[in-house]
Amino acid sequence: MKSTPPQDVEIWNVGRFYINMAAVAWEAGKPLVIEQVEVAPPQAMEVRINVKYTSLCHTDLYFWESKGQTPLFPRIFGHEAAGSPSLIVSSKPNSIVESVGEGVTELKPGDHVLPVFTGECKECRHCKSEESNMCDLLRINTDRGVMLNDGKSRFSIKGQPINHFLGTSTFSEYTVVHVGCLAKINPSAPLDKVCIISCGVSTGLGATLNVAKPKRGSIVAVFGLGAVGLAACEGARIAGASKIIGVDLNPNRFEDAKKFGVTDFVNPKDHQKPVQEVLAEMTDGGVENAIECTGNINAMISAFECVHDGWGVAVLVGVPHKDAVFMTKPINFLNERTLKGTFFGNYKPRTDIPNVVEMYMKKELELDKFLTHRVKFSEINKAFDLMVKGEGLRCIISMDDD
Amino acid sequence: MKSTPPQDVEIWNVGRFYINMAAVAWEAGKPLVIEQVEVAPPQAMEVRINVKYTSLCHTDLYFWESKGQTPLFPRIFGHEAAGSPSLIVSSKPNSIVESVGEGVTELKPGDHVLPVFTGECKECRHCKSEESNMCDLLRINTDRGVMLNDGKSRFSIKGQPINHFLGTSTFSEYTVVHVGCLAKINPSAPLDKVCIISCGVSTGLGATLNVAKPKRGSIVAVFGLGAVGLAACEGARIAGASKIIGVDLNPNRFEDAKKFGVTDFVNPKDHQKPVQEVLAEMTDGGVENAIECTGNINAMISAFECVHDGWGVAVLVGVPHKDAVFMTKPINFLNERTLKGTFFGNYKPRTDIPNVVEMYMKKELELDKFLTHRVKFSEINKAFDLMVKGEGLRCIISMDDD
Repeated sequence: MKSTPPQDVEIWNVGRFYINMAAVAWEAGKPLVIEQVEVAPPQAMEVRINVKYTSLCHTDLYFWESKGQTPLFPRIFGHEAAGSPSLIVSSKPNSIVESVGEGVTELKPGDHVLPVFTGECKECRHCKSEESNMCDLLRINTDRGVMLNDGKSRFSIKGQPINHFLGTSTFSEYTVVHVGCLAKINPSAPLDKVCIISCGVSTGLGATLNVAKPKRGSIVAVFGLGAVGLAACEGARIAGASKIIGVDLNPNRFEDAKKFGVTDFVNPKDHQKPVQEVLAEMTDGGVENAIECTGNINAMISAFECVHDGWGVAVLVGVPHKDAVFMTKPINFLNERTLKGTFFGNYKPRTDIPNVVEMYMKKELELDKFLTHRVKFSEINKAFDLMVKGEGLRCIISMDDD
Repeated sequence: MKSTPPQDVEIWNVGRFYINMAAVAWEAGKPLVIEQVEVAPPQAMEVRINVKYTSLCHTDLYFWESKGQTPLFPRIFGHEAAGSPSLIVSSKPNSIVESVGEGVTELKPGDHVLPVFTGECKECRHCKSEESNMCDLLRINTDRGVMLNDGKSRFSIKGQPINHFLGTSTFSEYTVVHVGCLAKINPSAPLDKVCIISCGVSTGLGATLNVAKPKRGSIVAVFGLGAVGLAACEGARIAGASKIIGVDLNPNRFEDAKKFGVTDFVNPKDHQKPVQEVLAEMTDGGVENAIECTGNINAMISAFECVHDGWGVAVLVGVPHKDAVFMTKPINFLNERTLKGTFFGNYKPRTDIPNVVEMYMKKELELDKFLTHRVKFSEINKAFDLMVKGEGLRCIISMDDD
């Protein structure tokens, strides 16, 4: 299923269409089909990248299942990925940024990049703010299936447009991404590992390190021990937490969670009283920080109410049902607790994500323990099966089947 | 109505009872009665102070009206105050700390103090935390009418105990206070002005300066333009806010609020849409900081929802009805807003309040504009009348009627 190489292409010739293989979702919940897809050249501020490794994240699954949203099909999913250093064009080896559109000055062929589902234009108030990563121009948009520049897709099959997903669509050998959604990273970083930094790991890690900011010796509770929650635990481990309490309804998760620094496990099902009371009793009044990674509204309330008065900070990460309402007594705030929410761990994609890769290179951040499965691109539906069954954490999909 | 001076008292003789004049609340909502009250000597870690000026705060009024709590009468109210440099004993002039109990080493006769309704033991986890001022030992307790040391009152009339209020009971010429509730201040500070730092001004000022922490040029909204809200505005003015939006249901408050830096006024009654939407439209998406000083649950929700995504911080100050529930959509947090609560502006009474007095001495903090009325101690019920009618901000009660 190797793609048809555009033999005559010239790297800087941005006017060419490529024919490549992509995994197309034709219908909600139906297995993806590997198809020959035409990839249009990048337009202004866009970059066409050669995806080398991609991973599957719950957001892909959620929009593929399309149970809660307006369905948008056919579509090419995928947003947790890394560009590859190999080129299908022999004349310019070791290039990843395969062609760039007008106005792109930061990236050139040969750079290594992580595409990110949200962007950083560097011009808007959010990008200029030290605190925010919620770019006005390139903020996540799950409904849009086209590129910003002209409102059209860069993917087509015999003239039929195929929708983009999150501006990344990494389940394709080549994809076109806005330059504001590409983090240029250390070229020595192994792409089959650091690709997971592009979404889930950063989301959890940043929630702890950038938002909760536990002090050394703190007690941190993490609600939900999936990949994002374990990345939050990893952040707490890196920050030097004295105790990391994992909260999950699935008791099988505790053993693996120990690798991420989790020292104590609480299953709300094992207790009659609300889990926030259980945690308060375990910790002489409450934890310093709680990170909520499930999106369940009751877990959100518990995460807030389990932090200590006077200094406790709770951080919401998980995305809830749109009709969910957060409810608590105001006294819980007045007693000097803080509640914050975060998006992508408050990391700015272009400015900060290269530094997360550096954390891995310096062996501060451990990634191997997240990588539980690996499949070839032709077996991409296996990655979906694993996630549907809740098996493992991250399945790396290798775009190069050879 | 001058008190009977304890002619034979020796300053350091802590074993003597004083007979002095105090305003006793015998029943809920009934005018206070100036009575001759015996003030017992201070016990371990207690200090008997000579109150020079006191003021009336809504908390006094609330517990005097006693509509929402278990009534505790007879009681001596008052908690916003300053000790006086004059002594009724002639042998040791210029003493305020009139006698001190065992274990008190920080204060001596002659010091100037502000009694505070909550304390700082300097030993507990809260006192040792940089963030908290919610002392485990001396945290505000509105139900307790006795001293911690022996569970007894230091006030009596012919043997009948009179309840304390907030550990301060400053509507008395002399009162006994735990040393942890006394801030030792600059002896040059005018007590008839800085007395209001002991509660309301610090509560609002600290909510802005210590908790919301607006950056220079920020837009700050303050809900409720009473004394605490205006102190929050004063904090925003000091921090260099570019715009201060006052939100109040009473349009008469805007003119006076201008003195506190308020530049814009919004009356929720003037708009069909929720006030958070009005504020978002006025400010291109939301304010940087909102400070809620009314205690109304809907104002709390509006204050949170009117801050800008990405960086907005809302701070709750007002104390709500005990059954009130704070409700909002979790997405409001996930879009990187922060909600915090504060108690006494996060100031530690002994450590920080002397610095607030210094802010006044350096002319950074303006107090005169809060001082709208002044009465003699014998006219204390006038101060209650003014507050019930909502007239003015702070009424200074001079304990020395001469």
